[in-house]
Amino acid sequence: MIGLGLIGGSLLRAAAAVGREVWGATESEADAAAAAADGFDTTTDLGSALRKAAERDAMVVLAVPLTALDEVVRKVGQHAPNCLLTDVTSVKSAVRASVLAFAPETRFVGGHPMAGTAESGWRAGNSALFGGAAWVVCVEDDTDLDAWAEVARLALDVGAHVVPLGSEAHDEAVARISHLPHLLAAVLATVGAQGGPLAMALAAGSYTDGTRVAGTRPELVRAMTEGNRDALLPVLDEALGRLGAMRGSLASTGGLAATITAGHEGMQAFAQAREATPAGVRVNLDAPDARDGLRGLGERGGRITSIADDTAIGEVA
Amino acid sequence: MIGLGLIGGSLLRAAAAVGREVWGATESEADAAAAAADGFDTTTDLGSALRKAAERDAMVVLAVPLTALDEVVRKVGQHAPNCLLTDVTSVKSAVRASVLAFAPETRFVGGHPMAGTAESGWRAGNSALFGGAAWVVCVEDDTDLDAWAEVARLALDVGAHVVPLGSEAHDEAVARISHLPHLLAAVLATVGAQGGPLAMALAAGSYTDGTRVAGTRPELVRAMTEGNRDALLPVLDEALGRLGAMRGSLASTGGLAATITAGHEGMQAFAQAREATPAGVRVNLDAPDARDGLRGLGERGGRITSIADDTAIGEVA
Repeated sequence: MIGLGLIGGSLLRAAAAVGREVWGATESEADAAAAAADGFDTTTDLGSALRKAAERDAMVVLAVPLTALDEVVRKVGQHAPNCLLTDVTSVKSAVRASVLAFAPETRFVGGHPMAGTAESGWRAGNSALFGGAAWVVCVEDDTDLDAWAEVARLALDVGAHVVPLGSEAHDEAVARISHLPHLLAAVLATVGAQGGPLAMALAAGSYTDGTRVAGTRPELVRAMTEGNRDALLPVLDEALGRLGAMRGSLASTGGLAATITAGHEGMQAFAQAREATPAGVRVNLDAPDARDGLRGLGERGGRITSIADDTAIGEVA
Repeated sequence: MIGLGLIGGSLLRAAAAVGREVWGATESEADAAAAAADGFDTTTDLGSALRKAAERDAMVVLAVPLTALDEVVRKVGQHAPNCLLTDVTSVKSAVRASVLAFAPETRFVGGHPMAGTAESGWRAGNSALFGGAAWVVCVEDDTDLDAWAEVARLALDVGAHVVPLGSEAHDEAVARISHLPHLLAAVLATVGAQGGPLAMALAAGSYTDGTRVAGTRPELVRAMTEGNRDALLPVLDEALGRLGAMRGSLASTGGLAATITAGHEGMQAFAQAREATPAGVRVNLDAPDARDGLRGLGERGGRITSIADDTAIGEVA
């Protein structure tokens, strides 16, 4: 595990809890010391941790912010150039480009667990963080499906279900449901605070909920939103277009029915997606169209819940 | 109590629980029947409930949506023209205008408890809804402070603290911390759902929090946002200005630091406002500048926590 913050630290704990042999490295002396105090094999020497992974043919998990990724991927290319490599970063196209540039001989499979809190650092982590979470495990045209299955098994082992997706489909979806929420929360927290002590004194549930993720460490939010610029811009424009239309309607007719009704219908679609009864699906990982089968499942909102031999078993509504 | 939905129904229960004699009226036969089944004196005949209030010199509380308000205020003017009147509506200038037009002889004091859930109707209510909540009780230049104190005592009795404010200061603040959050949530829920089943399958904490209030009944959200148009438009423009600047920055330099840092600082201001140690204040309600004293307290983020004789006792950070 390279990086022992909230996600890396939680995954190190969770993988150890299911009996996997784990070791970690981080440039944060505070996180390394805290993890060591909790009984984990950790170091601040990334090179030595990576060489050990190369010797033992271990999976390397990159759990560093996107801004630190190029530097760490270079070290992977230097110390463990042929390893099985995955990551837990919230943008997938950028990580794939970094790996192609700096560690092209690794067996790379991008990953992204949809779990987190507004907290960060080793002490914020816990082994149950991934229970019930969606974990995107990327399928590209050149993905080695044996490597994919190994990464997927790690996600399944720690309690998540696996959503197989191409990098671009992932980045477009998270722009909508993660990066846009972070940016709207930031603007709401700014406009709210402009109202001074009175506004802060009156703020209740709608404000607390709407601003919560604006408490996340700014460098983490910047890394994921700025790193997903290509997918985020059109989504931001979609939101701005709707907000502008709403503003125009309020100013001219005084009516907000279109905006508010559409939002309510969006919530109904969200609830229906969660409550739908899924049907079972199986994807033979040895089949020539396995990659298309996996991605198609993910794009329809489906998930993999187990892997037996060479078959990925899942469900889709 | 006129109106027995979430707020009116909760207040009827809470006032009864502290020993006040209460009766209620609603045009909703379902809510009237449900409240009667729970042992409350209720009717669908607003006129009879209002005439009883006039006979008994009772306080009348309007707990109907803003869209129904003019019609109900007309009935107050007809059946209880001199009563002590308050309301629990989320927009204060519009209610004041309605009362001045249709029940000008009432002793009117506007109110707004900052409490609620995404649920609605009698069955969604509970007597503990107002515990710890801010309850704005309006102070205008012509407000009778004896009537104000009676309304404030009701809010204090049911567990809230009182924020004294003029209608315009209230409406500006709630545009920021309640109405803007509802509109951003609606747009987020719409843009998210446009991502289809995949986006819905990946949606996690940031999306769930950011969209929660979009599940509120659309007619309630329309009533409060459309009813606060004058105060809401400039706040919406402030948010749109920041969103537009953010979009420009992402498109040109790729940077989002200004937006994200400002949001984080806004959250720190919110946390500091909640954690600040308040100092005690007292306002003599018989003093000639009592109205200014009360409003000034509210505008500085302060609150009234009890009323003893003719003194409002409170605190401000």
